[in-house]
Amino acid sequence: MSDSKPAQETKPETWRERLYEIIFEADTHAGKLFDVVLLIAILLSVLVIMLESVESFDDLYDFQFHIAEWFFTILFTIEYVARIICARRPLRYVFSFYGVVDLLSILPTYLIFMESDEMQRLGVIRALRLLRVFRIFKLGHMLTGASELRHAIWTSRSKIIVFLTTVLIAVVIEGAALHLVEGSVEREPGVENGFDSIPQSMYWAIVTMTTVGYGDVTPVTPLGKCLAAMIMFFGYSLIIVPTGIVTAELAHSGSKMDPSLISTQVCPECMREGHDSNATFCKFCGSRLN
Amino acid sequence: MSDSKPAQETKPETWRERLYEIIFEADTHAGKLFDVVLLIAILLSVLVIMLESVESFDDLYDFQFHIAEWFFTILFTIEYVARIICARRPLRYVFSFYGVVDLLSILPTYLIFMESDEMQRLGVIRALRLLRVFRIFKLGHMLTGASELRHAIWTSRSKIIVFLTTVLIAVVIEGAALHLVEGSVEREPGVENGFDSIPQSMYWAIVTMTTVGYGDVTPVTPLGKCLAAMIMFFGYSLIIVPTGIVTAELAHSGSKMDPSLISTQVCPECMREGHDSNATFCKFCGSRLN
Amino acid sequence: MSDSKPAQETKPETWRERLYEIIFEADTHAGKLFDVVLLIAILLSVLVIMLESVESFDDLYDFQFHIAEWFFTILFTIEYVARIICARRPLRYVFSFYGVVDLLSILPTYLIFMESDEMQRLGVIRALRLLRVFRIFKLGHMLTGASELRHAIWTSRSKIIVFLTTVLIAVVIEGAALHLVEGSVEREPGVENGFDSIPQSMYWAIVTMTTVGYGDVTPVTPLGKCLAAMIMFFGYSLIIVPTGIVTAELAHSGSKMDPSLISTQVCPECMREGHDSNATFCKFCGSRLN
Amino acid sequence: MSDSKPAQETKPETWRERLYEIIFEADTHAGKLFDVVLLIAILLSVLVIMLESVESFDDLYDFQFHIAEWFFTILFTIEYVARIICARRPLRYVFSFYGVVDLLSILPTYLIFMESDEMQRLGVIRALRLLRVFRIFKLGHMLTGASELRHAIWTSRSKIIVFLTTVLIAVVIEGAALHLVEGSVEREPGVENGFDSIPQSMYWAIVTMTTVGYGDVTPVTPLGKCLAAMIMFFGYSLIIVPTGIVTAELAHSGSKMDPSLISTQVCPECMREGHDSNATFCKFCGSRLN
Repeated sequence: MSDSKPAQETKPETWRERLYEIIFEADTHAGKLFDVVLLIAILLSVLVIMLESVESFDDLYDFQFHIAEWFFTILFTIEYVARIICARRPLRYVFSFYGVVDLLSILPTYLIFMESDEMQRLGVIRALRLLRVFRIFKLGHMLTGASELRHAIWTSRSKIIVFLTTVLIAVVIEGAALHLVEGSVEREPGVENGFDSIPQSMYWAIVTMTTVGYGDVTPVTPLGKCLAAMIMFFGYSLIIVPTGIVTAELAHSGSKMDPSLISTQVCPECMREGHDSNATFCKFCGSRLN
Repeated sequence: MSDSKPAQETKPETWRERLYEIIFEADTHAGKLFDVVLLIAILLSVLVIMLESVESFDDLYDFQFHIAEWFFTILFTIEYVARIICARRPLRYVFSFYGVVDLLSILPTYLIFMESDEMQRLGVIRALRLLRVFRIFKLGHMLTGASELRHAIWTSRSKIIVFLTTVLIAVVIEGAALHLVEGSVEREPGVENGFDSIPQSMYWAIVTMTTVGYGDVTPVTPLGKCLAAMIMFFGYSLIIVPTGIVTAELAHSGSKMDPSLISTQVCPECMREGHDSNATFCKFCGSRLN
Repeated sequence: MSDSKPAQETKPETWRERLYEIIFEADTHAGKLFDVVLLIAILLSVLVIMLESVESFDDLYDFQFHIAEWFFTILFTIEYVARIICARRPLRYVFSFYGVVDLLSILPTYLIFMESDEMQRLGVIRALRLLRVFRIFKLGHMLTGASELRHAIWTSRSKIIVFLTTVLIAVVIEGAALHLVEGSVEREPGVENGFDSIPQSMYWAIVTMTTVGYGDVTPVTPLGKCLAAMIMFFGYSLIIVPTGIVTAELAHSGSKMDPSLISTQVCPECMREGHDSNATFCKFCGSRLN
Repeated sequence: MSDSKPAQETKPETWRERLYEIIFEADTHAGKLFDVVLLIAILLSVLVIMLESVESFDDLYDFQFHIAEWFFTILFTIEYVARIICARRPLRYVFSFYGVVDLLSILPTYLIFMESDEMQRLGVIRALRLLRVFRIFKLGHMLTGASELRHAIWTSRSKIIVFLTTVLIAVVIEGAALHLVEGSVEREPGVENGFDSIPQSMYWAIVTMTTVGYGDVTPVTPLGKCLAAMIMFFGYSLIIVPTGIVTAELAHSGSKMDPSLISTQVCPECMREGHDSNATFCKFCGSRLN
């Protein structure tokens, strides 16, 4: 990205540039260490929130959970302030997706502290803290391969929309059909008829077409079972379509991006790209390649 | 398609041609707007029908649902009449798939109005209105990628038929086998034996092979469980076959259709196609390409 | 196959050769008609057996089912005898897979007739008649694409065996692990513990790993649920492996077999194959291709 | 591997080298026979342990199971000792993965014998014997194709990690969302609310996203069902991603490794590889290939 001034980059002059390199980048040793420590802190804090929601744990370790929660909140607050200080455009960071996530993952603890004990019971605010799990994506530059995946899904988006539209239309029609067939069938007392409205039947259709199949709602009439069997076959066949789409896209992008097949070198004469990696001469003008 | 008379096309002379362009095409600004408005109207009317089927909503908002239903019906009636008026071959449109769908999606409301209140209870006529969800497909020209998908499925059809035939034969055999093994096993009182006939056992076999797995019918004998486990493995393995078929087809058609690999230009000398997009000279006669 | 004597083939001399062509082949008009009639007969007779197993139908239409059964049995007996008469090697046909299937699909009706009424209750003999559904495969020459599928599965067999071995070992280990964790947990009275032996736990593991998920056996302890969640992820990831294998194989065989890419023509000079379909000259010796 | 001294290899001089060839290799007839016998012994001993865990069998055949268990334990002990004796580096074998598995699969029987009867009830020690099922992998050299599979999964690992991270983050967020929506809903007496803590809800989210769908925990509120339907669609779409990854990798590695496309020969002049299998001349220097 900034390969124009490598000398300046490797020797940061101010402490802000140094801090920026540690927090936002992962090229230096300190930057990598920071990422790993942050990852562990995020995972541990998520674990604490998860365990806190288990009543039997919360009764036993209420105090420890509070300590841990405050420790992580202060840690993330320091990190948040440091990011604002060293960011080249602080406002842009604050209103970016990750800036909002960073803020939302520390704010709830302060809100609960400031407000009454009553509010602490509000699950929504407590649950908001779990948004810090999204911060893991920020460390995405530690992973290669994510960009290729995103690219494959992005280029397949029009086909995926066609697929999802088809599935949703199918769900509406199937839900209506099963509602007609099963909606007025009497069940045993205490057993709810899961087809008594079209939205309910659509829930069943989605559970069936995605092959999840809870079994909380099942058809009981022969005609309903017959329709259900056909819907299952249809859902079973449908999964092959998006699979094929993304696979074909990945196979395609993979073969194009594979460095062993297409080199990134540019012909020094005609400045054209796309030569095979084993080519010795430019296939466009015949000049010798480097 | 009609690139021969572009001047005439861009300036329609009569109001019927203008209307045709708006309703049936999506090249102009008005045509695109019409499509978007129509899409929203279809989705809203489908939503109304869905919510109407929920008893608690229907009791509360009965009047509002009636108003909305009549609003959409009159809207779609105007559209239907407009389509007949401006269509170049009105009868061909009326008897086409979308013409029938358009008619079926407005007719039920009038039928319910003309007939007695008794008839309004008939779910079938009410449900017929949901066919208007198919009208979304008419707006398919808004989506690219659908044609390639259709092409891949169409060229794979013979393999898909082989696959479905195999699955259906397997379902018959498995249903019969489980009926033999589990059909005469006594269940607890009140629990129905789901294997008491071959069609019932086939329903179970389909639920199992498509990995839906409701659990409303499950084997209870060791032999039945053993057979079921084998059927699951078989069903699990089977899904890979159609996936492979469509994926291979898509990967194939994708690489052939990709504009970055094969250009659509024709050699001006020998009129042959299929040149690589980066080719400068015709590979068949050596003439310079445009 | 027999393109050496086309004149003799198109004009069969004896009635046995004529019959052979109708019954065993599908090139002539009569042969195709015979296949279609046979297919319909097989499907109808399978339908009769299926409906016969439903008690409420059997009580009502017992007589009609008997008539239909005898009609199809006599029809298939005539066909069986005709096949033996006109087959070039009658014994080879009788002991072939399809010969045995043909016999097994007519024998049960005669056995039931000859024996007492008691025996008619024997489901096994009645169910044997369903083997006639396998006869549909005999009509496989009506379908193209089956051979390519078989080829792809056959060439992938070593990888599929590796995959199935891995899955089976995983099932054994997972079954044992869940048996240890959940096997001694007390359930409510009347609810069976589905993990009380390793084979039972393995049944659960298979139901889970194939994503069927009946829900008749589910873990109840936190550790058991945690293990189950990991097993689900593992099973979910596993399906991608055989899918990938067969898809890659199909994509590969597809691109090799595609007539639009590789022509079947042979160089008239050096007799080598594998030329691109748009090639004008042999790529091995430079001779002009036909 | 050791193609430098074939003469010495085919005629082993000492009995230790001979034993090594039989036990560790599978090139000779005796080595293959040893592998097959070992495979059968492993499978039978695993079967014995499995059946032993079924209480009704254990009561009937307790003595026979003991005999069989000791027979296999002594057999595997002899094999273990033989491996140590003939291994070129005995300690390296002992502390290798398979060395530890071999020891763990014989040790439990001796431990149970030496200790009191009480200990025999300890399921953990009994279950440890099942680790001998891993020994099947040692016979992996009997299978081809495993290495290519491993290679495809290994090269796709960064994408698979991205995928699993995304799924796990989704599970945390979905679990928290459903816990908020469904966690405080009253169920019927005796029916546990499966969303009463975030880990419990995460278990549900995993069961749903992997399309297992037991149905032991299901949402009951309309909002919960709506969220669940969206999660199902998400999970259903997610499976296509890893499938695409591994398939593309396999298709790619397959085409590179396919001996019919790329030959392994090296140009005798410029020593370069990667020639098409049908090439006659080196594509880099024009020398004639062998």
